[in-house]
Amino acid sequence: MELKIGLIGCGTVGTGLLEILDKKREYLRDTFDFEARLVAVTDKLKGSVCIPEGIDIKKLLDLLHQGERIDAYHGEVGSHEAIDALDLIEKCEADVIAELTYTDIKTAEPATSYIKKAFRSGKHVVSSNKGPAALHYHELKKMADNNNLFFRIEGTVMSGTPVFSLFENGLVGNEVRAVQGILNGTTNFILTRMEQDSMDYADALKLAQELGYAEADPTADVEGYDAVAKIVILSNVLLDGNISPADVRREGITALSKDQVLAARAEGFRYKLIAQARKAGRRVEASVSPRKLPLSDPLAGIMGAHNALTFDLDLMGKITIQGAGAGKIETGYSILSDILAIHSRLRR
Amino acid sequence: MELKIGLIGCGTVGTGLLEILDKKREYLRDTFDFEARLVAVTDKLKGSVCIPEGIDIKKLLDLLHQGERIDAYHGEVGSHEAIDALDLIEKCEADVIAELTYTDIKTAEPATSYIKKAFRSGKHVVSSNKGPAALHYHELKKMADNNNLFFRIEGTVMSGTPVFSLFENGLVGNEVRAVQGILNGTTNFILTRMEQDSMDYADALKLAQELGYAEADPTADVEGYDAVAKIVILSNVLLDGNISPADVRREGITALSKDQVLAARAEGFRYKLIAQARKAGRRVEASVSPRKLPLSDPLAGIMGAHNALTFDLDLMGKITIQGAGAGKIETGYSILSDILAIHSRLRR
Repeated sequence: MELKIGLIGCGTVGTGLLEILDKKREYLRDTFDFEARLVAVTDKLKGSVCIPEGIDIKKLLDLLHQGERIDAYHGEVGSHEAIDALDLIEKCEADVIAELTYTDIKTAEPATSYIKKAFRSGKHVVSSNKGPAALHYHELKKMADNNNLFFRIEGTVMSGTPVFSLFENGLVGNEVRAVQGILNGTTNFILTRMEQDSMDYADALKLAQELGYAEADPTADVEGYDAVAKIVILSNVLLDGNISPADVRREGITALSKDQVLAARAEGFRYKLIAQARKAGRRVEASVSPRKLPLSDPLAGIMGAHNALTFDLDLMGKITIQGAGAGKIETGYSILSDILAIHSRLRR
Repeated sequence: MELKIGLIGCGTVGTGLLEILDKKREYLRDTFDFEARLVAVTDKLKGSVCIPEGIDIKKLLDLLHQGERIDAYHGEVGSHEAIDALDLIEKCEADVIAELTYTDIKTAEPATSYIKKAFRSGKHVVSSNKGPAALHYHELKKMADNNNLFFRIEGTVMSGTPVFSLFENGLVGNEVRAVQGILNGTTNFILTRMEQDSMDYADALKLAQELGYAEADPTADVEGYDAVAKIVILSNVLLDGNISPADVRREGITALSKDQVLAARAEGFRYKLIAQARKAGRRVEASVSPRKLPLSDPLAGIMGAHNALTFDLDLMGKITIQGAGAGKIETGYSILSDILAIHSRLRR
């Protein structure tokens, strides 16, 4: 069965998805009877292309890898009118819109408008964007449900390491009492270097920036805002919560000194930036803060840029999953896994 | 939607399943539109009951908890003719047979005959029995496929901690290059006690037996046979292998001394009984043996009776899941999760 896909945003995640679709085309067709027809791609910085009969993914990837604009697909750069993303979402013939634009955690725009437009024009949405999922999950999910559409967001937390899919399939029937995780790879990398190489915070941050783990302005990571967005999403999706980022007690790692980290280690503990949420009666209480974990805690062993999440469940007790928390192919994969989940549900 | 369930074998796992079905009846109905109608239960030691209109689960659990026979459900112990399990499987009106009899890893009987009988009479099978899955997976799966039936075996590896469901949903589209895991809780408990309490192997084994983690004859666990069965199942289900237990290089933990365990620890390593399988061309190579892992390995941190499995994947790299590897409710849950997976596929 063929699914027609439209990409809104074509940076790292979109490129990763296209690389996987290109590499795995035959395997996906033979194993799952899945064919992706790419009908539209738009990116604020790179332009757009929209072809109902299907875009040649290899040809588009060649352009992207050469740093060319998406417009250049037709061979005549600049000759095409700029296409408005909202118009494209409405008019393209996609079954599924992959919303992969940049996260704005304060406004969740323009992503939220894109997602609503997709639902209004009868299209499923998969998204790795933390803004809409953290600020408007219930509203968007309801809109999808009311229109008999899917809204899937695996990539918003731990990239392609399955969290939502793991729960809705492998842990179905359990009640989630709490979740606790290391959800930000940048801060975990910094804390790992501070402990293992006795680095000061500032030096470890600089190294993270040099290696591409941290951005020039590292605030979203080191002050905990990124982890806050993720714990809000987990709270609202897995714990039936209805909280927003302002409800989360937040403390970053910037006040943590090398001496504290090394002293903890000498006592058999390890500092981690822990995001957690738990049910407290009908409410959900969530926080992000550095915590001293005993080394026996499953989260204490998560080093470098890896992520992990522990579910505390009424039937299964504690289940922990760990894996990549970022990466081009890994986050691209999260989008594919959501598309395949839709494909599998539509096929039956 | 209602599913009619027949239980073949009603020991710990069956009782765990019944306890969950009793406790979660309303939740499962309201959340998943799932109703379980228990139509038959048979156990070699406890007798049988078969009621097409449905067995009262609470009433049956009361009998089981009081140590009564299943026959006593009708109030007249011994007044009913013994029912042959094969007959019951054929004649009862179950949609799904839960095959929960004792594992015989040498013959896989009588479980394999039960499963074949179920398929021949048009019934889906869920099973936590390692015998049929380790010795006859491909044959049974083909038989199920040819009859448009499901054969699900989540509980055979790591009890209810999702392994097969995790892969078929959350990691769909990845190729598994290798798996590596701690799949036997008894030996992991023994190794943990040897290291943490400086116990000799014999003393740690005795403690495991006192606490109910090890059987009076511990051979299947400590000599690695249980882990061999599990790595064979993983090889054949996840790595497209076609191997049998005799193909697995096997070494147990009985030759491991306290001194070796403590010396490894002093060097920053930890002994674990590791089951692993990897693709080597078109073949799968599998082994079970004690290995010295660096403490940074995700499996090195798995202590006590817990289990864990690392998937090595072409797209997602390494993903590790850890959780319970045994337990009444946990293994009972594995059966429920397979039944819910069938329910969800039949509903659509």
